[in-house]
Amino acid sequence: MDEVRRLVVTPIGRLRTPWATTSDCPRNGRRGETPLCSVEVDDAFVAGLKDLEGYSHLILLYWLDQAGVPEMVFTPPNDSEPRGMFATRTPRRPNPIGLSVVKFEGFAAPGVLRVRYLDCVDGTPLVDIKPYLPSTDAEPEASMGFQRRIA
Amino acid sequence: MDEVRRLVVTPIGRLRTPWATTSDCPRNGRRGETPLCSVEVDDAFVAGLKDLEGYSHLILLYWLDQAGVPEMVFTPPNDSEPRGMFATRTPRRPNPIGLSVVKFEGFAAPGVLRVRYLDCVDGTPLVDIKPYLPSTDAEPEASMGFQRRIA
Repeated sequence: MDEVRRLVVTPIGRLRTPWATTSDCPRNGRRGETPLCSVEVDDAFVAGLKDLEGYSHLILLYWLDQAGVPEMVFTPPNDSEPRGMFATRTPRRPNPIGLSVVKFEGFAAPGVLRVRYLDCVDGTPLVDIKPYLPSTDAEPEASMGFQRRIA
Repeated sequence: MDEVRRLVVTPIGRLRTPWATTSDCPRNGRRGETPLCSVEVDDAFVAGLKDLEGYSHLILLYWLDQAGVPEMVFTPPNDSEPRGMFATRTPRRPNPIGLSVVKFEGFAAPGVLRVRYLDCVDGTPLVDIKPYLPSTDAEPEASMGFQRRIA
């Protein structure tokens, strides 16, 4: 079981965004301006990007290495009540893995993707790129829990 | 930089599914039967589940600890051409983190969630639970790249 308890993530690249510090980051990468950002993939993984063109959207997983220590219950900045951490998208999680569904606008270079809708800090380590498949990933009618009142 | 290169995931629980081995698993947890599965959350994290009720769907991240070694280009089982790994949802990834959008059917016990649409093996380590927010996660019109021809 020890090996299961030590699951090691290897960064495969990094995200390039306009935000130098976490306090510069927007709360939601889809509101207001949605500046063009870049995904830089390390050379060892560039061959795996074949066939990515043709997808309009991607799912990016990344490591929120500047997130603080998680609290299981906390009051979100835009809320008046304490909430369970797993009922929010706070970066302060037991495993600080961020997830964004991004618009994919093609390659700037063989290992550099152009994307929109990111809201993380410049240099954030990239963990995975997955194709967005509406057949399994899109639930437009999903109910938003308590966030319906504050979204 | 060394600490960035060693990003350690701590399992927060495990997934309970009907499939004992990877060869028993369905290729897609939304096709055919969609049996009820469970998410068991370890005691240290149960307080963070507050307010989860009210969401109809969740995003689960989990560690595909039985996935094989990744190949950057490979021919998927249902395809005739070699594809870039990041253009597929194969479990054989540099960081074997699986992602499923699941239907949430409430709690069986304080730390046990009832969900549908999983397709992974019983006992898979749980990495994160996020609320599914259609405002940022649903792209029903997204184009599916080469998978439109084989989906």
